[in-house]
Amino acid sequence: MAHDAGRTGGSFVISVDAMGGDRGPAAVIAGIEKSADKNPDIRFIVHGPQAELRRLIERRRGLADRCDIRHADGIVTMHDKPSQVIRSAQGTSMWSTLESVRQGEATVAVSCGNTGALMALSVLRLRKLPGVARPAIAILWPSHNPSGFNVVLDVGADIRADRTDLLQYAMMGASYARNGLGLERPRVGLLNVGTEEHKGRVELKEAQELIAAAAGPAGFDYVGFVEGGDFVGSRVDVIVTDGFTGNIALKTGEGTARLVGDFLKEAFANSIMSRFAALLAVTSLKRLQKRIDPRRVNGGVFLGLNGTVVKSHGSADATGVSAAIKLAFQLAQSGFHDRLAARLAQAAEQAADRAKDAPDEGASS
Amino acid sequence: MAHDAGRTGGSFVISVDAMGGDRGPAAVIAGIEKSADKNPDIRFIVHGPQAELRRLIERRRGLADRCDIRHADGIVTMHDKPSQVIRSAQGTSMWSTLESVRQGEATVAVSCGNTGALMALSVLRLRKLPGVARPAIAILWPSHNPSGFNVVLDVGADIRADRTDLLQYAMMGASYARNGLGLERPRVGLLNVGTEEHKGRVELKEAQELIAAAAGPAGFDYVGFVEGGDFVGSRVDVIVTDGFTGNIALKTGEGTARLVGDFLKEAFANSIMSRFAALLAVTSLKRLQKRIDPRRVNGGVFLGLNGTVVKSHGSADATGVSAAIKLAFQLAQSGFHDRLAARLAQAAEQAADRAKDAPDEGASS
Repeated sequence: MAHDAGRTGGSFVISVDAMGGDRGPAAVIAGIEKSADKNPDIRFIVHGPQAELRRLIERRRGLADRCDIRHADGIVTMHDKPSQVIRSAQGTSMWSTLESVRQGEATVAVSCGNTGALMALSVLRLRKLPGVARPAIAILWPSHNPSGFNVVLDVGADIRADRTDLLQYAMMGASYARNGLGLERPRVGLLNVGTEEHKGRVELKEAQELIAAAAGPAGFDYVGFVEGGDFVGSRVDVIVTDGFTGNIALKTGEGTARLVGDFLKEAFANSIMSRFAALLAVTSLKRLQKRIDPRRVNGGVFLGLNGTVVKSHGSADATGVSAAIKLAFQLAQSGFHDRLAARLAQAAEQAADRAKDAPDEGASS
Repeated sequence: MAHDAGRTGGSFVISVDAMGGDRGPAAVIAGIEKSADKNPDIRFIVHGPQAELRRLIERRRGLADRCDIRHADGIVTMHDKPSQVIRSAQGTSMWSTLESVRQGEATVAVSCGNTGALMALSVLRLRKLPGVARPAIAILWPSHNPSGFNVVLDVGADIRADRTDLLQYAMMGASYARNGLGLERPRVGLLNVGTEEHKGRVELKEAQELIAAAAGPAGFDYVGFVEGGDFVGSRVDVIVTDGFTGNIALKTGEGTARLVGDFLKEAFANSIMSRFAALLAVTSLKRLQKRIDPRRVNGGVFLGLNGTVVKSHGSADATGVSAAIKLAFQLAQSGFHDRLAARLAQAAEQAADRAKDAPDEGASS
C-alpha cells in the first residue's frame, strides 16, 4: 500500500537535500540533529557529497545511526534557471532527494534549494496527480485562528491560475488544513480586492461558482471572497489565490513583520529607561519573537504531485530546517498524500457524474 | 493661473467631505479642527447637511471663521455601487466636495467615503488628464528609506493595468515622490515575483522596457523588478503595480502590522514583570505605536485627474482625518498638480517625437 511508502519499523523516513541552501550542509545537518533529538520516530536519507556529509554527521553523537547518506556530486544553485535544471540536474543532490520519494523509500522530501528548480524537478520526476494541471505551493500564515494559522496557496508555483486551477487549489488547501491543522471542516475563501460579489476579475467570479458548488461534496465550507486583511484574521482557514498574487502577498507580509520588528528594537534602544525595561521584559519579548519568527513556520508544501515535497527557506538555519522536517513528519504521519490523492480522484469522478447527469448544474452558486 | 486655484490671500483652500465615513461628520470636524490649530494657512470648504455641520463647527472655538459650509443632503454610503453612484450622486456631499475643486475654489478634495464611488465620481467630474487611460491611487508605505516611506501605486483604482498604464504610473509616482517626499531623482521599481529579468508575466517585461526608456527624460532612475519585501526596504522610492496586486499587498501589510501589534500587546500582558516593564517602556512603546499607526499616514492620492483628490480611510478618526488634510495641504503647497500635468504632457510629446524620429527605439531596455 502506498500509505506505507517510506515507513520502516514504526518510523517514517524523510529524504533531505543537504545542499543548495544559503548556509550549506552544516546548517542542514544541525537541523536534522535537532529533529532527531526531538523525535525518535524519524529516520533520514541525506543527499549530497558523501565524504563531507559523513564528516558532518559523525561529529554529532548518535546521528549516524539515524541517517543513510546518498552520494550526489552536483548542486542546483539559487541562480540556475528551472528550464536549464530539468535538462542537467541528474546527479545533483536535489534530483537524488526526489528520487528517494519517487522510489518509495521515503515519504516526504525536504530541500532548502532553488524554489523554481525544485518545483520543475518535482513535476518532472514525481509527475502531477491525475487531473491536476498546475501544482501549488501552500504555506501556513500566522493568524488569529485557534490553530494559529491560515493555509495560503498558491504562493508561487505558477504565476497563472485559471478557474479550474483555483478550484483545485481550494480542494488541495482544504485537504492540507484537514491533515496539517486538524480541522474537520475547513473554511475556504477566494482572495479578491473586496468581499462584495460584484468586485474583482471575471475569472474570480467564475472560480467562485465552481468552488461554491464543490464545497459540500468535498467536505469544506466556502465563505466567499476574502481580502488581504484576512490573511491574519479568523474568518477563514484556507485562502486561495494565483501564484503571482500569493507570492507578492507572502513577501509583503514577511517584510512588514520584519519592519515592525526593527522598529521595536529601535524603540527599545531609545533610552536607558527603555533598555532597562527591555531587560525586564526579556521573556515576553522572546515569546513575541518566537511567534513572529518566520523560521518557526518554515516550509512551503508542494501540492498536486505524486509525493509530498517540503520547500524550506533558502536562508534556513538549524531551527528553520528542523521546522521544515517537523512539518514533513506531520504530513507523513497523517497519511496526507494518500488522502489528498483520494479526495482529488473522488472530486474528478463527481464532476464527471454531474456533467453527465445535469450538464448545466455546475453553474449554480 | 491654475497654480493659484483655491488659493486665497496666502492660504490654501481644502474641500472636505464631512459625510460618508464610518464615524460620521463629528470625527471629520474634529480632524479639521486639529489641522486648523496646527496650520493657520489652511481654509476649508466643508460639505454636508448645513444645520448639522454648523452645530458641530460652532461648538469649536474659532473654527467657524476658517470654514465655509456647502449644504448637501445626500450621502454616498459604503454600500453604494460606483456604477449606481455616477447616475445618482448629484446633491451628495461627495459630489459637492469635488465640485469645489472642479470650479477652482479649492485646490485639493478630501473624503473618507466609499473609494470606488469617489474614484468614479472624480473621473466623471474632474476628468482624466490628457493621455491618461487609467488614473491610479498612490499611498505612502512605511519603509527603511531616509524619507521613511515608499510611494506605492496603484493600490486599487483599477484592477487592470496594461504596459502603458504601468508606464504612466511610473511617471506619476515619480512626480509624487518628487513633490510629496522631496526626492530630486526618485528610484522607481516594477513589482514582480522575482528580480531576475526572465521572471514574471509577459506584460511586465514589456512595461519594464517602456519604463526604462522613459526614465532618463522623465528625471527618475529605473532600478528594475522589485519584490514584495521591497515595500519596506530602501532599494526604491516608487513601486509600480496594477491595482489588484497593489490593493491586496496594502491590506496584507496593514493586517500583518496589526497582528504583530496584537502579539506585542499579548506578550506584555503576559506576566507581572513584563507589565512593569511595559510601564517603564511606555515612551518607547508609544513612539513605536506612532511609527506603525496607519492613521498617521492616512491618505491615498488619486493621480491622473484634472485636480487632486485625497482618499482618507473610511474608519479614520480625528487623527486620521487630520493626517489626510495635512497631506492635501502639502500637495497644494508644492503645486504638485500642475507639475504632474506638465510632466505627463512633456512625456507624451517626447514619446510622439521618438516615435516619429526612430520608430524602433522604444524597444531598447
